[in-house]
Amino acid sequence: MIKVNEYFSGNVKSIAVQNSDGEQTVGVMKAGEYKFSTSKKEFMFVASGQMDVKLPGESEFKSFSNHGSFVVEANQSFDVIVKEDTIYICRYE
Amino acid sequence: MIKVNEYFSGNVKSIAVQNSDGEQTVGVMKAGEYKFSTSKKEFMFVASGQMDVKLPGESEFKSFSNHGSFVVEANQSFDVIVKEDTIYICRYE
Repeated sequence: MIKVNEYFSGNVKSIAVQNSDGEQTVGVMKAGEYKFSTSKKEFMFVASGQMDVKLPGESEFKSFSNHGSFVVEANQSFDVIVKEDTIYICRYE
Repeated sequence: MIKVNEYFSGNVKSIAVQNSDGEQTVGVMKAGEYKFSTSKKEFMFVASGQMDVKLPGESEFKSFSNHGSFVVEANQSFDVIVKEDTIYICRYE
């Protein structure tokens, strides 16, 4: 059964995946501002669209798009601003 | 509102996306064998996992994985064999 998760009143939806690449979610974010918290280390890959991200300990937002990627350690939080539908893939460790 | 589509009794689920890259769906296929038909030209990108694909006019299956991609013209059908959860992104033209 493929599990679909919803966050932020349905403005973020993700599908859970388990394969030889490990535990992942693939998802879509609608335009908006979000704060995420991690329980595991997260490897985020921006497949389409753009994420402006304020990483833990940073004071500025950095832009990731067009197959850009970033990493957030476990038990941290990060802020994301999305200006158009954005596709991401998150791998957990 | 983010629309989630289901196919093949829930063994394929996809999320619809519209952004500056165009009309896309991002989805997950569970292990299985599928036949897809296109109404538009489709650019398929395999983000994680593997697809063995028999493209229109071909007699053999070809493997696509690890960011591999293939194109299927409009009004064609193609066969796909998936052996583990596979993440794909499809862009339509």
